Amino acid sequence: MTVLIKVIQQPTQRAWLDQALGNLDLLLLDHAHCERKAAGVALQLIFRYPAHALLVRQLTELAREELEHAQRVDTWLEKRAIPLAPLPAPPYASGLKALVRRPEPEQLLDSLLVAALIEARSHERLALLAQHCPDPELAHFYGDLVASEARHYGLYWLLAKNYAPDPQAVDQRLAVLAYAESNLLAVLHPQPRMHS
Amino acid sequence: MTVLIKVIQQPTQRAWLDQALGNLDLLLLDHAHCERKAAGVALQLIFRYPAHALLVRQLTELAREELEHAQRVDTWLEKRAIPLAPLPAPPYASGLKALVRRPEPEQLLDSLLVAALIEARSHERLALLAQHCPDPELAHFYGDLVASEARHYGLYWLLAKNYAPDPQAVDQRLAVLAYAESNLLAVLHPQPRMHS
Repeated sequence: MTVLIKVIQQPTQRAWLDQALGNLDLLLLDHAHCERKAAGVALQLIFRYPAHALLVRQLTELAREELEHAQRVDTWLEKRAIPLAPLPAPPYASGLKALVRRPEPEQLLDSLLVAALIEARSHERLALLAQHCPDPELAHFYGDLVASEARHYGLYWLLAKNYAPDPQAVDQRLAVLAYAESNLLAVLHPQPRMHS
Repeated sequence: MTVLIKVIQQPTQRAWLDQALGNLDLLLLDHAHCERKAAGVALQLIFRYPAHALLVRQLTELAREELEHAQRVDTWLEKRAIPLAPLPAPPYASGLKALVRRPEPEQLLDSLLVAALIEARSHERLALLAQHCPDPELAHFYGDLVASEARHYGLYWLLAKNYAPDPQAVDQRLAVLAYAESNLLAVLHPQPRMHS
């Protein structure tokens, strides 16, 4: 927990929580998309680095877990009769992706750190939802997912440390990206999203 | 089984089995890639059709299972000390992909049927490996996966029937694609692969 508090530069603003709690159905739908997208991100990294054994093995497990989470969110969608539908993505993920430098080894490092930051932010927001969600059963569900997101943050960070030519430089780059990550969330998106 | 035998136009030739049995390590490495690619194909379909509830739910489960299989193959790679490495893909998957018509609803139908055929061929070949692999433990492992591949074939076929505007036309199109699928395997690829 302490590590994550240090990683995220700016905590989520209260306005996001109010918007989220006022639109729980929409947030659940977005959450289902996010879990599947997280699995997709892990698979893309696997396909890009097929000989990086540690990365391939750990991200296969991570992707499997994200799909399990998606299935658990799907159960909530069914329970609340929320139809599946596409949702326009907020600028968050594309904004982070734009910060990934293209040459190697920078591309791998940045990709891992961006994924780490998204997991860290998910961790922070799920913890907020677990604490403030008025539906106790849904709050409990959010609480269940909190630990996984923290673990996934740690996994991406450890992969970054493992593959970076200079492990000492990892946290410097993480601080730069974390600053940008907080900036991307500085203005609340008009549509309620997990990452907006 | 009967359904699958009817789906596949030409059974796998003996030369493929001999090549596979003579290169089991390479085949396991390719198999690990195939399971992860199968998860990737399912996720791509989910991202392309986010409002198709049945497709999204069933392919989330299928992708999760494929990743579980990948992890089981990874265990075999570790056991036999086979290092992870990229492998050039044989022309099979790209040849099938080229047959997918672009306008909708043809694109969805063809995508589902191509995925169904790949699963059906995997089923047939895993059954051959289960029967002929000289390592009894590995043969048993292949046998374990056989039923899943048949189930995955059925799942894609049922999704095709569900989403096709004319369900009667599904099997006609399947026959056309199955003919092409067998043609793609008519000449044995010089490199041993699950689908070559």
